Amino acid sequence: MGNKKILLDHGSGGKISHALLKEMILPVFHNDLLSRLDDGARIDIGGGISIAFSTDSYVVDPIFFPGGNIGDLAVNGTVNDIAMCGGEPKYISAALILEEGFSVDDLKSVLDSMAEAASKAGVIVVTGDTKVVPKGKVDKIFINTSGFGLIPFGVNLSGSNARPGDKVIISGTIADHGITILSAREGLKFDSDIKSDSAALNGMVKKILEIATLEKGRDERNRAAISERLLNSVSISDSGSGLSSSGSCLDSEPGLDSERNPDTCSGVHVLRDPTRGGVGTTLNEIAQQSDVRINIWEDAIPVKDAVHGMCELLGFDPLYLANEGKLLAVVSAEIADIVLDIIKKDEFGKDAAIIGEVVRPEPCGVFLQTSIGGSRIVDMLTGEQLPRIC
Amino acid sequence: MGNKKILLDHGSGGKISHALLKEMILPVFHNDLLSRLDDGARIDIGGGISIAFSTDSYVVDPIFFPGGNIGDLAVNGTVNDIAMCGGEPKYISAALILEEGFSVDDLKSVLDSMAEAASKAGVIVVTGDTKVVPKGKVDKIFINTSGFGLIPFGVNLSGSNARPGDKVIISGTIADHGITILSAREGLKFDSDIKSDSAALNGMVKKILEIATLEKGRDERNRAAISERLLNSVSISDSGSGLSSSGSCLDSEPGLDSERNPDTCSGVHVLRDPTRGGVGTTLNEIAQQSDVRINIWEDAIPVKDAVHGMCELLGFDPLYLANEGKLLAVVSAEIADIVLDIIKKDEFGKDAAIIGEVVRPEPCGVFLQTSIGGSRIVDMLTGEQLPRIC
Repeated sequence: MGNKKILLDHGSGGKISHALLKEMILPVFHNDLLSRLDDGARIDIGGGISIAFSTDSYVVDPIFFPGGNIGDLAVNGTVNDIAMCGGEPKYISAALILEEGFSVDDLKSVLDSMAEAASKAGVIVVTGDTKVVPKGKVDKIFINTSGFGLIPFGVNLSGSNARPGDKVIISGTIADHGITILSAREGLKFDSDIKSDSAALNGMVKKILEIATLEKGRDERNRAAISERLLNSVSISDSGSGLSSSGSCLDSEPGLDSERNPDTCSGVHVLRDPTRGGVGTTLNEIAQQSDVRINIWEDAIPVKDAVHGMCELLGFDPLYLANEGKLLAVVSAEIADIVLDIIKKDEFGKDAAIIGEVVRPEPCGVFLQTSIGGSRIVDMLTGEQLPRIC
Repeated sequence: MGNKKILLDHGSGGKISHALLKEMILPVFHNDLLSRLDDGARIDIGGGISIAFSTDSYVVDPIFFPGGNIGDLAVNGTVNDIAMCGGEPKYISAALILEEGFSVDDLKSVLDSMAEAASKAGVIVVTGDTKVVPKGKVDKIFINTSGFGLIPFGVNLSGSNARPGDKVIISGTIADHGITILSAREGLKFDSDIKSDSAALNGMVKKILEIATLEKGRDERNRAAISERLLNSVSISDSGSGLSSSGSCLDSEPGLDSERNPDTCSGVHVLRDPTRGGVGTTLNEIAQQSDVRINIWEDAIPVKDAVHGMCELLGFDPLYLANEGKLLAVVSAEIADIVLDIIKKDEFGKDAAIIGEVVRPEPCGVFLQTSIGGSRIVDMLTGEQLPRIC
């Protein structure tokens, strides 16, 4: 490798990031858990208990931006990564690296946002670390959050589970976070409500998994009737008492486990939050992991008008801009409408839409059906659109 | 707080760090788990299972030094923090923050060291993250590692468990890491074998906890005979098959749990690795958490001659210099000699010594009996001796 240097591209989340991961990191640490390349690791700790474990460092610039700051971003990001693995996040860590001279008031604001985000997501910060480095050796504040959560019995999510016939759902408008950071960094002012979508999606995920299970378990009944009942009952399902008593996979029933299909929640195959690298890169990851072709429909992808305008003006493709409060769900066609309805009823999912489908194994990749009837390949992000986006 | 700024002292691990923690961080995240202020959190995840969860960011400068580099330091540090909470570390995360322009060869060396350290410690890196920030926004490479491990039944370690009468053991010579980093940073050359003590101590901890349990369970037998047997059997205990079959608390025995004393391993009260802030600061933390007075004996504290010389020359107190492969054990007097022998037989414990005792509740603090017969207060580190030590 001689004089090779790390480039910003290596942190893009796109093609070059994946090359670094596959050529340097995976071979060194080679193990099956890491090699799955999901948002976190799924670990069987024995006794039938599985845990989702995830980590992320946050280096966003600027640290304060419309819709949030590095503090809530760090909490929501790790909460979401755990949730996308099927885990129910409950405990997280917070490790701060501070620059000498950083404002104590700003630190207080960041900590307050972390605490508020944690409270909203229903997680607690149980351990942490604080380092201070001399001025100029780090830019203001970087935060690492890690965390874990129990994975309910029967939940088996992975980027490698997408199957031909599946539908692809996005939980809302894309590129909000990316365009917000870009605008804030460049000092661009514009009259609009563009702000980061930073949010914890573990509540939404819980409902999706509950619905999927119920639907799978009720084949004998009228589908429409079930769907209506489910939708009506979701509003009380947050407590875990509403749905879990009626056979949800989130409810363990001792004695029945051995007879159960470990694929109970199989209607929901993949959950992913399209952060760094955006929807385009995340769908490519899923296509590669599952070895499938995914078609998405340009007209179906929700983008706010203001975001669309900014992207046109500045030459950015919203498919590659980061989201921090959205999820992609790849689900079986039979439950796609139900899952969509569930997401739309969630606080963070009102703009959700079915944006594509998994069509067949080959050629592996992501293809966009454009508004004017054409089709183009959506590759992984090449190069770095926007460093320090999260 | 107005214009207050973060100082290097806030990251010292000493007095000012603790003020930051107690005045700003704990009040914001207030919860019992975080407030215990141990090296990690002890979390009851239900079903009688407890987990130790810990995180640390590593910002050491220089990143390569005699005895190791930032990679093995990051792995060993988190492995040790989990072990000091009584957890058996098995899974860790690795989150890298890289500076644009960082040498790919150096990254490879660091990753190789991480993998080697993980292998030696018996843990695997199961999830990770890589960020790259523009040149000048971080210094070369920072690494966060987090991890968790199951805490065997009956193990209950905390800095708040020290009791009057307990003995204090250090597992080897102190200040090796601190003086190594100082020398490497300043480009000091000296003819000696001074190098970082970076090492994973989870193997040593496992033996200590096994011995403590066995000793507690054999009151009716001759103490010397047991001691001898234990010492002879330790060499085969790594596999878990040697000792755990004879009643160790590391061996769960279904059906007996309800009759067991949850304090089974109570002979071992506190384990801590005296990293940032050194032995002096760590003992002060224990004294404060347990509200006790700890006396230590200067003559008993193992310090390498070369380290002693460097400290005298440069005006550093070895009591405040970091260790990265040492532990402090606070144990009941009855088992102190046995624990000492066990530690001495470990690969990383040959210079272990009993260096002090917990004498009485008041006044709370740490006191040094000097070589010439005097006594002085050993306060927490005030100010920053050496930034970016780990």
